[in-house]
Amino acid sequence: MIGGRRPLSGRKVGDRRVRIERPHSAYFRYTGPGQLTARRAANVPKTGIGRAWARVKAVAIGRPLASEEEIGERLSKTKALAVFSSDAISSSAYASEEILRILVLAGGAAVVWSVEVALAIAVLLVIVTTSYRQVCHAYPSGGGAYAVARANLGVPVALLAAAALLFDYVMTVAVSIAAGIAATTSVVPELLPYRAELAILATILLAVANLRGLRESGNIFAIPTYLYVVGALALIGLGLVRVVTGDPAVMFPTPTVTPPEGGFEALSVLLIVRAFAFGSVALSGTEAITNGVPAFKPPEPRNAANTMTAMGLLLGTIFVGLSVLSFAFGIVPDPAEKVTLIAQVSRQVYGDGIVFVFFQVVTTLILVLAANTGFNGAPRLARILAVDGYMPRQFAIVGDRLAYSWGIGILAGFSCALIWLFDASVAALIPLYSIGIFLSFAISQAGMVRHWYEERSRGWRWKLGLNLVGAVLTAAVFVVSAASKIPNGAWVVIVAVPILVGLMVWVRAQYRGQEAALFVAPDAVVPRPHRSQRVVVPVNGINRAVVQAVNVGRTIGSDIRAVYVTDDPDAGEKLRERWNRQLPDVPFVVVESPYRAFVGPLVAYLDVLDHTWSPEKEAPTMVVVLPEYVGRHWWDRILYNQTARRLRAVLVGREHTVILDVPYRREQGGSAATPPDDPAAAA
Amino acid sequence: MIGGRRPLSGRKVGDRRVRIERPHSAYFRYTGPGQLTARRAANVPKTGIGRAWARVKAVAIGRPLASEEEIGERLSKTKALAVFSSDAISSSAYASEEILRILVLAGGAAVVWSVEVALAIAVLLVIVTTSYRQVCHAYPSGGGAYAVARANLGVPVALLAAAALLFDYVMTVAVSIAAGIAATTSVVPELLPYRAELAILATILLAVANLRGLRESGNIFAIPTYLYVVGALALIGLGLVRVVTGDPAVMFPTPTVTPPEGGFEALSVLLIVRAFAFGSVALSGTEAITNGVPAFKPPEPRNAANTMTAMGLLLGTIFVGLSVLSFAFGIVPDPAEKVTLIAQVSRQVYGDGIVFVFFQVVTTLILVLAANTGFNGAPRLARILAVDGYMPRQFAIVGDRLAYSWGIGILAGFSCALIWLFDASVAALIPLYSIGIFLSFAISQAGMVRHWYEERSRGWRWKLGLNLVGAVLTAAVFVVSAASKIPNGAWVVIVAVPILVGLMVWVRAQYRGQEAALFVAPDAVVPRPHRSQRVVVPVNGINRAVVQAVNVGRTIGSDIRAVYVTDDPDAGEKLRERWNRQLPDVPFVVVESPYRAFVGPLVAYLDVLDHTWSPEKEAPTMVVVLPEYVGRHWWDRILYNQTARRLRAVLVGREHTVILDVPYRREQGGSAATPPDDPAAAA
Repeated sequence: MIGGRRPLSGRKVGDRRVRIERPHSAYFRYTGPGQLTARRAANVPKTGIGRAWARVKAVAIGRPLASEEEIGERLSKTKALAVFSSDAISSSAYASEEILRILVLAGGAAVVWSVEVALAIAVLLVIVTTSYRQVCHAYPSGGGAYAVARANLGVPVALLAAAALLFDYVMTVAVSIAAGIAATTSVVPELLPYRAELAILATILLAVANLRGLRESGNIFAIPTYLYVVGALALIGLGLVRVVTGDPAVMFPTPTVTPPEGGFEALSVLLIVRAFAFGSVALSGTEAITNGVPAFKPPEPRNAANTMTAMGLLLGTIFVGLSVLSFAFGIVPDPAEKVTLIAQVSRQVYGDGIVFVFFQVVTTLILVLAANTGFNGAPRLARILAVDGYMPRQFAIVGDRLAYSWGIGILAGFSCALIWLFDASVAALIPLYSIGIFLSFAISQAGMVRHWYEERSRGWRWKLGLNLVGAVLTAAVFVVSAASKIPNGAWVVIVAVPILVGLMVWVRAQYRGQEAALFVAPDAVVPRPHRSQRVVVPVNGINRAVVQAVNVGRTIGSDIRAVYVTDDPDAGEKLRERWNRQLPDVPFVVVESPYRAFVGPLVAYLDVLDHTWSPEKEAPTMVVVLPEYVGRHWWDRILYNQTARRLRAVLVGREHTVILDVPYRREQGGSAATPPDDPAAAA
Repeated sequence: MIGGRRPLSGRKVGDRRVRIERPHSAYFRYTGPGQLTARRAANVPKTGIGRAWARVKAVAIGRPLASEEEIGERLSKTKALAVFSSDAISSSAYASEEILRILVLAGGAAVVWSVEVALAIAVLLVIVTTSYRQVCHAYPSGGGAYAVARANLGVPVALLAAAALLFDYVMTVAVSIAAGIAATTSVVPELLPYRAELAILATILLAVANLRGLRESGNIFAIPTYLYVVGALALIGLGLVRVVTGDPAVMFPTPTVTPPEGGFEALSVLLIVRAFAFGSVALSGTEAITNGVPAFKPPEPRNAANTMTAMGLLLGTIFVGLSVLSFAFGIVPDPAEKVTLIAQVSRQVYGDGIVFVFFQVVTTLILVLAANTGFNGAPRLARILAVDGYMPRQFAIVGDRLAYSWGIGILAGFSCALIWLFDASVAALIPLYSIGIFLSFAISQAGMVRHWYEERSRGWRWKLGLNLVGAVLTAAVFVVSAASKIPNGAWVVIVAVPILVGLMVWVRAQYRGQEAALFVAPDAVVPRPHRSQRVVVPVNGINRAVVQAVNVGRTIGSDIRAVYVTDDPDAGEKLRERWNRQLPDVPFVVVESPYRAFVGPLVAYLDVLDHTWSPEKEAPTMVVVLPEYVGRHWWDRILYNQTARRLRAVLVGREHTVILDVPYRREQGGSAATPPDDPAAAA
């Protein structure tokens, strides 16, 4: 829909409909024969409440953006690094901790393996980012795992990747925000009991920020992301200086660890592999840039690839550096999650003063905002899926600020639910995280292998080889990761992802069915219909709403009748008398309903009418006119039109039946808007 | 609406419309010219889901009853005693306990006053029942406090009484069910932690039983009510025999009482008055019979009055008897509410065996079922108020079983909420109870004083005097009761009742406003309108739903045009080309919407159309045809018609605009129902 821009076309000579269609209003530009272009004024709500709501939206979400302004939303490399990399870089704030959390299960001496595990993950990171650089170049229109798999591996695999990504977007938000709150509670332990509430509040604030649109998000993000990078690099630099100078505090001590229930495990290869699997959460978010290539300033692929490299370098340095420092200081994770590992390291280096507090604040900010990768990615992916018919169409509705309101709302909802269920504990949330990421990594790389094999452009063998290594490695990590985390809750992912795929397939089948049911051959000329229709007006007495409905009914059809359903035949007779006096040319039918039902007898009466029509073969269109009293307040929905609402629900499913809503608006009575033949005006 | 029955009228000679209107179907009896009477078949749902739901309803709620069957729902005196008196009589199961709960605040010796207080309340009971006997005779159509006050004291006072009664109906349900569960947990203390859940379950079951209708409630109720009366009278009889024979267990001991926090209070007049106020809860439910006079078998007033006397005698005897016995055995309430007072008394008399358990079961049953007074009374009162316009009209909708579904549902909801908030504790709920009752007692009696003064029938002075005594006494109890219970939560009543009155006044003003706005002079003849209309069909392409909508639009108006709103002008041009080929005689307009909004630009285009029409003075009716795709499943509401729904909401408030819903039902494609001129059939 957002496709090519239309060149502004002026008035064309010889256009026959100019005079009729040309609007004398501020709403439109006239752009062609039978063609209007809406100005912003056309979107301004007409009612007082509507205008007030629009004002609230403008303050909270910002003014609407036209499609033409979208190009202005493009990101420079420095901003893009902040927007798309905050997730990946911020994962350095908890990944080292997750490695140690596994290793200490074998006692304090096992932490000696933490640096080796971190280095192995860093190697994986190098391979993955290098593979992904190629994706940026090959899919400049945005090469998420879904797009790559769709193009190379077929729809089922693509949906698997999409489902895995959607799940992990939710986890990105939940884990990042939980970790951000943990960074705060490391400084202010008094807030610990409220961490779930705080995390949910942060999620909601972030969702609102995202409804404001992409560019402003970039502004918000640039500052804390770079502050975190600077703070973390300084932390590592200062720490390493102390290591090199032989500071007495640095002595690579063997930390004392309380044994878990059932005692320590043996230090096995399996445990080290598990530590690797938990630590590989550091790679989460790496792929975000490939999804967002079109948001870069031109030349998009090149800028995206270079941003990808910068991100990989920063993330790798911080992650490995923090692992080395915690090993050097002999720091292990707090089993009660009262203080984070990075906070312990930073207190060692920066002391307990203002610098420590500032770095924790910055860590909180980058983590809470890192969740933004989820808010950037999930609605975009959902929109692509909706356009392809795999998600309900609502997800394709573009909100005012070029953001995808539905996707943002649902993402925030699920994330809040997970935060609440796991009480914002990072250690509890992590096992559900990153499995899906590695699944989509592997699918994406495998798709690229196929891509190079089909394309065979210059140097394809080398590129294919690189992506093949990436595919095999990430697939291996996926299997190991899923297998080793199943007891910790990873089965949720293994259940949820296929269900999500099934739902998407099902939604697609629904829309396909609708398309088929509605298909019209593109060449058939539709002739003018020659059918007649019958008009039925259910009435509850004689009042302005009824009179107006009957009058509208009379203008659209000749065979009209009013029907009064009642359990009180006396009332029926009384009304008939008055009706015959006031509306003598409209036949009046009383349907007595001893069971006091309204809808059933009325529909049965329509069936009877259909039946009497049967001598003629062609079924008539039955127009049921519903008078509706339009109030001005939300409570009017409770006070009025209950019966009409129940009747409509039944009539919508009835053959040959159309429903004509005739709203009677309270304002119209007595003003110039009163129709001249309105009997009430004569009263 | 339920007023007089209509004599069955057969076919009338000389009726011109017989042949046309006579139904050849099982749905109707033909009962006159332009007059049909629905048979039960007319209420049978047409869809599979509808039929299944009707079957579920039939099992859970029973088959529908015609108005004509209502007379069969009348109650004999024995059944009416059970239905209308279970609340009043069952209050003997907790009223004595409430007296003692106050007196023991002054220590064990203070319980000597309990019998005196109980006797004072019994005197009040005699006066109130005697006054109410007169109401039965004076208001045979049902003399609730609202009706009496409305007739004699004006609307504001009547609404005050109604609000107080509605509040107390909720309390009746909550307190009775909580007390019933307490009777059970006295035998099975293991259930104590689940008392709130059990109470809510019981409330829901009771609501379902009430949706089944009045007569069956009568059957359910007769048995436990009479079993309780027999059991309680036997208990008192056996207990008194032991008192008279000087049983060594009976020695009027001074019970030992743990002092409350802050030590015992002094035994003051104030304390005794408070004990009286708390114990006067015994009178709750006394008025129920006067609300239900029309439900009695004829002669209604006489039967109702005599039932009233029987009820008063039984209640008074049991209440005073239990107070005497607990004094004789030296029994005081358990502060932890683990065992009820009546259970302690009954264990003393019946021992710990099967008879004790049986009496507790019966007590539970009468108490849980006593809540039925609320379920009988509140929806009836709500219906009267709805018919008078003080409550939303939904409350006047008669459910299938002559019950008032809305009232029952909301009553059950509020009661469950109170039970949950107060954790089903009778001691905590009681202070909110009975204040409203005495307010409505006083209003009702005051109304009767006025009634006799106006009527001056034979013996009016005597009757006026009696009601005057009742009015003064109950007003005094109301004041004392409210004042003494405010610290215990009675302020809730004092806040809630005026709010409820305000809401009722407000609802009435709303409906009054609607009536005035819709008023049509009863003699004005409505002429045939000569207005034209303009038909606009918003389209999203060319498909069967759109073609059907355009075709229906063409049959009802000549000035028709299709409008396509898009942010992609290329798509607009492509569609225009196809449109001009397939529907050449329907003008096609493209509205480009750079802000990607749909509703705003469409409505702005309608405004432009209105504007171009302005040379002619008379505003045309704008018919907006909305194609609607009708699915077969609940999820179709999520998948389809989102945009149409948003558009409808805006159009309903637009001047001169009516909305024509043209549902496209999926089933109709390809079958005989396909219109012959449907182009899809040619595809």
